[in-house]
Amino acid sequence: MATLCRPAVAVPEHVITQEQTLALAREMHAGHPQRDLVLRLIENTGVLTRHLVQPLDVTLDHPGFELRNQVYEAEAKRRVPDVVREALAHADVEPGDIDLIVYVSCTGFMMPSLTAWLINTMGFRSDTRQLPIAQLGCAAGGAAINRAHDFITAYPGSNVLIVSCEFCSLLYQPTDIGVGSLLSNGLFGDAVSAAVVRGEGGTGMRIERNGSHLVPDTENWISYAVRETGFHFQLDKRVPGTMEMLAPALKTLVAQHSWEVGGLDFYIVHAGGPRILDDLCHFLELGPEMFRFSRATLTERGNIASSVVFDALARLFDEGGMEDGARGLIAGFGPGITAEMGVGRWNAGPGIDRELSALTAQA
Amino acid sequence: MATLCRPAVAVPEHVITQEQTLALAREMHAGHPQRDLVLRLIENTGVLTRHLVQPLDVTLDHPGFELRNQVYEAEAKRRVPDVVREALAHADVEPGDIDLIVYVSCTGFMMPSLTAWLINTMGFRSDTRQLPIAQLGCAAGGAAINRAHDFITAYPGSNVLIVSCEFCSLLYQPTDIGVGSLLSNGLFGDAVSAAVVRGEGGTGMRIERNGSHLVPDTENWISYAVRETGFHFQLDKRVPGTMEMLAPALKTLVAQHSWEVGGLDFYIVHAGGPRILDDLCHFLELGPEMFRFSRATLTERGNIASSVVFDALARLFDEGGMEDGARGLIAGFGPGITAEMGVGRWNAGPGIDRELSALTAQA
Repeated sequence: MATLCRPAVAVPEHVITQEQTLALAREMHAGHPQRDLVLRLIENTGVLTRHLVQPLDVTLDHPGFELRNQVYEAEAKRRVPDVVREALAHADVEPGDIDLIVYVSCTGFMMPSLTAWLINTMGFRSDTRQLPIAQLGCAAGGAAINRAHDFITAYPGSNVLIVSCEFCSLLYQPTDIGVGSLLSNGLFGDAVSAAVVRGEGGTGMRIERNGSHLVPDTENWISYAVRETGFHFQLDKRVPGTMEMLAPALKTLVAQHSWEVGGLDFYIVHAGGPRILDDLCHFLELGPEMFRFSRATLTERGNIASSVVFDALARLFDEGGMEDGARGLIAGFGPGITAEMGVGRWNAGPGIDRELSALTAQA
Repeated sequence: MATLCRPAVAVPEHVITQEQTLALAREMHAGHPQRDLVLRLIENTGVLTRHLVQPLDVTLDHPGFELRNQVYEAEAKRRVPDVVREALAHADVEPGDIDLIVYVSCTGFMMPSLTAWLINTMGFRSDTRQLPIAQLGCAAGGAAINRAHDFITAYPGSNVLIVSCEFCSLLYQPTDIGVGSLLSNGLFGDAVSAAVVRGEGGTGMRIERNGSHLVPDTENWISYAVRETGFHFQLDKRVPGTMEMLAPALKTLVAQHSWEVGGLDFYIVHAGGPRILDDLCHFLELGPEMFRFSRATLTERGNIASSVVFDALARLFDEGGMEDGARGLIAGFGPGITAEMGVGRWNAGPGIDRELSALTAQA
């Protein structure tokens, strides 16, 4: 039993609104032949606010790959520990209870990854397994959950900590002025999140089955160009239409679990952009309210890469969680094009048990 | 049951000898105050030949991070498929039998990782899980084996393909002239390797237990500085002495399996450098012949990062493998400082079965 507990999410203190984004794009790309298209695309994202790890004027400056990556490391070390502590507290576990740390991040590169520093500074055991994943992009949130599920299936009763650290603003490339790049400049945001997957107990989504799907021959649709200036995000214009190709994979996984994809109680999916959510409503024949958590993440924080699924799940918890046994789907989408999907039931039991114990203790 | 089958290993066609390395170091660093120390250190590595993915003169030129990384991608696509095909053949499985691809490489960066391209071009199923690991350095070979073991423990009967692609020569940085860097220039080599871990059947090392150990507060001892010029390998002079800290972790893991670390039949360990092997002999009280496979890898190919354990294991197979039930240890060491360790028994059965079937068929 692998229960994905309540995630902790933190967004940086610097905020950029859609109005500011549009004004900047209008001004900086005044002579761009497709400027008006870009402005419309940014408006259509529905992203109203995003958070940035640095002030806006600093974000717009490219100080070089080395300095950018130093900022990544410093900000990760500054912001990750509190989120980890909160996620551990949500799951009611201590650092010493964690058997595997999955660290996902595609917006900075460190070797060793932050896992070594976390173990050294936060009281994790020296035999904690480390699984850093840098190359699954936005799908890495789903992949982290799925590898945690695999690990707990192999070692029943073990606990996994997932950390997602995404500072997308550190990938801003002033010289990239293609439509895809300018749209991305209005879409991505920064966030840090963490969640514990408990092998026993815990309140949250019990992952019962997971799967992966690669859409054939789309490996160039979402990619990084690696240059002296760092990672350059490259977005093919066909990407927003990929849900038509991924919806069947979601259906298949849910059907393997003897459920129907249109009949679940909750859906937590990667909000890569507005069309992904619109198309999922269409292809899975669901009302838009079924994606309200992912939509809210997109609207308020933008596409925060591998952190989207944790932010959206945190919103479900904020709404009070689900009834015990409610059935749901969680999925990340990213480069490959890859979907990392999981299905399972809501596990409200231990929480209820704890509340009852608390009441009994008070009485 | 997770049986690590016979690895396939390929080294590039360009060769540099220790004599050439010493002559180059003597000439290029003629005025270096520690040149003679560097020459002695390089001689002491015992590395006699290394293979390079490009001719020597091209290797010594730094064309920029972007071009370097393009070479990485092109050479990986050119050299990995044959090795993968050979590893699949060794394990007697087809691409469609593979459920997870673990791709480990710390010497180039791609997003998506090569897993997507491999699935698209080599006939793997679209639901194959992808696990790319870029941040575990030389420990990633052991980590790949261990995560494969975990996966098969979770899904009995599944099969995992491990691919290790290490072009260390693409990390040569002409401006790094510290002793650690100059020593590294004489130590690392290029190689591509692959191995299948079969959930059922197969001949090879059946992994029965795995574990990880992080040496506290050593996260800066082996690291990359990320710069405009790419990844800069940084080696602390205390690294060669780390076996004193890791030997107890090896002992502990073996003891958890109710075996004694000094009493095993075979040892496949990362040959980071000569002192690692010497110290393991000392601390585990073993004769040098017990590390002959790893020693031969180091001597003939240098430190080929995450590929060392596969190259050393291939040499054990070349020697004829082990008796059924022989007990052994396999371990990768790398940044963190991290050890990724596994113990298990030799599984000769299916191979014997196949030979018998072949004889019967002939008769």
